[in-house]
Amino acid sequence: MKLNLQTLNRAAQGEFVKALGAIYEHSPWVAERSCAKRPFATVADLADAMAAAVAAASPQEKLALVRAHPDLAGKAARARSLTEASKGEQGALGLDRLSDEEYARFERLNHSYASKFGFPFVICVRRQTRDAILGAFERRLANGTDAELATALTEIDRIARLRITELVEGPGMPKTDGRLSTHVLDAHAGRPAEGVKIELYEIGGSATALLTEAVTNADGRTDAPLLSGTPLRAGRYELRFHVGTYFAKRNLALPEPAFLDVVPVRFAIAEPEGHYHVPLLVTPWSYSTYRGS
Amino acid sequence: MKLNLQTLNRAAQGEFVKALGAIYEHSPWVAERSCAKRPFATVADLADAMAAAVAAASPQEKLALVRAHPDLAGKAARARSLTEASKGEQGALGLDRLSDEEYARFERLNHSYASKFGFPFVICVRRQTRDAILGAFERRLANGTDAELATALTEIDRIARLRITELVEGPGMPKTDGRLSTHVLDAHAGRPAEGVKIELYEIGGSATALLTEAVTNADGRTDAPLLSGTPLRAGRYELRFHVGTYFAKRNLALPEPAFLDVVPVRFAIAEPEGHYHVPLLVTPWSYSTYRGS
Amino acid sequence: MKLNLQTLNRAAQGEFVKALGAIYEHSPWVAERSCAKRPFATVADLADAMAAAVAAASPQEKLALVRAHPDLAGKAARARSLTEASKGEQGALGLDRLSDEEYARFERLNHSYASKFGFPFVICVRRQTRDAILGAFERRLANGTDAELATALTEIDRIARLRITELVEGPGMPKTDGRLSTHVLDAHAGRPAEGVKIELYEIGGSATALLTEAVTNADGRTDAPLLSGTPLRAGRYELRFHVGTYFAKRNLALPEPAFLDVVPVRFAIAEPEGHYHVPLLVTPWSYSTYRGS
Amino acid sequence: MKLNLQTLNRAAQGEFVKALGAIYEHSPWVAERSCAKRPFATVADLADAMAAAVAAASPQEKLALVRAHPDLAGKAARARSLTEASKGEQGALGLDRLSDEEYARFERLNHSYASKFGFPFVICVRRQTRDAILGAFERRLANGTDAELATALTEIDRIARLRITELVEGPGMPKTDGRLSTHVLDAHAGRPAEGVKIELYEIGGSATALLTEAVTNADGRTDAPLLSGTPLRAGRYELRFHVGTYFAKRNLALPEPAFLDVVPVRFAIAEPEGHYHVPLLVTPWSYSTYRGS
Repeated sequence: MKLNLQTLNRAAQGEFVKALGAIYEHSPWVAERSCAKRPFATVADLADAMAAAVAAASPQEKLALVRAHPDLAGKAARARSLTEASKGEQGALGLDRLSDEEYARFERLNHSYASKFGFPFVICVRRQTRDAILGAFERRLANGTDAELATALTEIDRIARLRITELVEGPGMPKTDGRLSTHVLDAHAGRPAEGVKIELYEIGGSATALLTEAVTNADGRTDAPLLSGTPLRAGRYELRFHVGTYFAKRNLALPEPAFLDVVPVRFAIAEPEGHYHVPLLVTPWSYSTYRGS
Repeated sequence: MKLNLQTLNRAAQGEFVKALGAIYEHSPWVAERSCAKRPFATVADLADAMAAAVAAASPQEKLALVRAHPDLAGKAARARSLTEASKGEQGALGLDRLSDEEYARFERLNHSYASKFGFPFVICVRRQTRDAILGAFERRLANGTDAELATALTEIDRIARLRITELVEGPGMPKTDGRLSTHVLDAHAGRPAEGVKIELYEIGGSATALLTEAVTNADGRTDAPLLSGTPLRAGRYELRFHVGTYFAKRNLALPEPAFLDVVPVRFAIAEPEGHYHVPLLVTPWSYSTYRGS
Repeated sequence: MKLNLQTLNRAAQGEFVKALGAIYEHSPWVAERSCAKRPFATVADLADAMAAAVAAASPQEKLALVRAHPDLAGKAARARSLTEASKGEQGALGLDRLSDEEYARFERLNHSYASKFGFPFVICVRRQTRDAILGAFERRLANGTDAELATALTEIDRIARLRITELVEGPGMPKTDGRLSTHVLDAHAGRPAEGVKIELYEIGGSATALLTEAVTNADGRTDAPLLSGTPLRAGRYELRFHVGTYFAKRNLALPEPAFLDVVPVRFAIAEPEGHYHVPLLVTPWSYSTYRGS
Repeated sequence: MKLNLQTLNRAAQGEFVKALGAIYEHSPWVAERSCAKRPFATVADLADAMAAAVAAASPQEKLALVRAHPDLAGKAARARSLTEASKGEQGALGLDRLSDEEYARFERLNHSYASKFGFPFVICVRRQTRDAILGAFERRLANGTDAELATALTEIDRIARLRITELVEGPGMPKTDGRLSTHVLDAHAGRPAEGVKIELYEIGGSATALLTEAVTNADGRTDAPLLSGTPLRAGRYELRFHVGTYFAKRNLALPEPAFLDVVPVRFAIAEPEGHYHVPLLVTPWSYSTYRGS
């Protein structure tokens, strides 16, 4: 059950802080300082006010906020002793169920990171695939401390906005979702390709996982976006378009085996809140694809 | 050491038949009947004369010719008791070293085929991948006997031409080779993409095998065709173009991770003697490919 | 002021016929016979009922209906003695203001056509460019009389539906409009191309006329379709995309003059009620276009 | 009759200077100073030696060399009192036969240029269309004097190399030619498009001139490049591919009129010695083109 923005606007300060105190990890003071800015016309205004309270905090408070976060895929995750919010976020990526080898890799990274910076690695895990997190982890280890602290606060802002979006309902929700869509055009027939099976895979460093599959409708599109409603996870993906089966149904005179069967399109998502439109323009002998919007 | 066409033209009939008697499996009569057509101006003329001798043979002789062939991947292959030519042809695909499971699958197919048609399954293995052979085997089992006998004789003709090409040298060689080439054009810079690593894989039903790799030169091409000099093996392939590394070297402002990294292009070859040109026209955000020539 | 369907459903028969008697040229009997089918739930149902009355008429009545039409661009058009509806339809194409030479050409065609078939050439001029009408005129002269009579009745049906659409308002309007839209994607930058000037020309046999121009918005589209709201005129068109100016604003390092400046895309519309989406995917060195939807 | 490099290497100095004295306009001293560098192994070496003599000359000599050139399309051209070489170069562009209006425009530009810089506008006219010359003229008027003198000397170098290439034969000719080629691939059929008529036009500011036409062969190419053997003229061009007629011959089921008929591809050439390959990949519903090589 979501909290209503109007209710929050009218609540006593204690109720307000109780409701939103966990938006920033173990840091109810962010809610306390935002309370005076009420009423908020939109949920986005509420999120902005909380972000402004962090931005106006002292360096010591900011550092403490970062330090209030648990290690990623660390002991706390293994022991299931995270805050409710962190549990859901890390759990969705399976970071609480790593193999021993993966756990050891995270442990090494957590250790190196803490030794260098003096605070834990913070990343908004809901905007990343597991591989992308490992990549970011290794990349960010090379940063300077000031830059890295700023990065951590940016990630905390993203985490907070997602938590608010899940917790509160009302007008003017923050923009936190991305979208992946596709479209298949049959350039041989000059019309949308209907009935093409499409699979979407996440491409990991070691494995590949089917995320969803769909079939194109009369407009050459899928009835719903392939991904939507939440941030996209930055990472690597592959679309597989089953055009061989599609063209076979059109009874064209094609060689056996046909030149094209399953067309794989491999790409990366870097903007979790972006709209990625990855269409396929295809004949039995050629195709093109691009990042559209 | 190849035989010279001129030498064959002048040889005594016994020598001629000895030299060419194995071109058609266990059937030296094909060489005997072709001998009178000498001299041959070209090696292709020699091949045509032998094919004509088969075409003019009686139905019984044609059936006997087909029956003279060993089972594919059968007991003889396992026991290494094939003719020298068959040994090389089947061995190159590993048909003499199948797993027990694969061997059993071929055994079942050989048995079904022989029961239905009364002669062994003949296919020019050097024009096929192992997967393509299995596909053809299953497809041809549905044929009628007359059509299938004709198919077998067509395959025997292809086998013979390849054997002649390997055995005899002289002017006018039969056309038995195919070619696979590629080309990478950087449509972002408007010039050939130099230094792009390309891998070529054969895509099997269960496994994927790296066949060759190359790097594009200043003209965006590979110094040599990816495949050439022999028939292409009908089957499924995948080119992998490492464009992410290429664009990274150009120091463009791209997101991390970049939209495109390794671009896979999966296609099938159906004409072993054809020229397949499969280029890539690419920017950091789009690409197209097609069967060119 | 449009007539309301509900009002027509309730009107006395005399009123109904007076209101709709001119839908079919000089043939109020079509309205008379449709009247009994009331009430109509949708405007499309009304149009279908009138079409059904024509379809059920005798051969003599059908022939008389065709003969009730004026010559195209003929004496009546010149003398401005057409029915109001015909005046508007022919006038929009300038068929009442032809040069002497054009008038003579239409006269010759009208004469040949009447001599051969015994009835005037009928075409729904609002679905055609002037060039397309001349092309259709010459093509249809080669038809047999039965086929041509059927064609004329099909065109009369199209004329009637457009007249109904203009005259009557209510739920379920007949589908009589087409749409032309475009979209420019900058495949160099991986995003929609904003600020690209686009011109749309009609390409005639002798001349070229600017129909409209627009500039792409942040989504790479035009704020409104280039053509919409009425049938598209079958005929030839050219889009001109001013990409040279666009890329110049991006300050890329390009040669002088740049490889691409104005990109013309010439195409034909054959389905006046269709949706033609003709996008451009462009870099400074390449482009592609297609009929999308 | 060309001069042989070997003969020039052995000639007396007076003969050498007489033969090559006109390579640099009214400046036989360039030939004199190059003479001592003989023998030249290649014609390119000869050209380089003459260029080096200019580069080593005093500022006064360089200025005098530029001043030795006639006005472009000026009084001398009109009066046919140019050197033989200049006559041929300016005449090929029709610069000696301008309309009064064009002549007046060149006069104004010549006058402004001479007033600003104190020397005449020099450009290697054989590397430019007439429009491109006018564009360069106006652009260069904005230069500073030093930059403009350097530009004039670069153009003189290009003029000299072309004159040497025409006058002298021998090994190692300077690279002075460019090439324009094309290729049509039918992506609907998956093979080269044979029999496509192609026209090449020069697109001028006011007019359009047909330069050449060709028909594609079985490989989808033209038997000879569209332009070759001399420098390309920097300027604007349009290829027109008659794909409508081509697809009509393939008897596909297409609407009337077909979506694509004549496909225009408009592009600019900026590198007169470059290789421009401008292919067309086309179906009845789509096409793409790019600068290849």
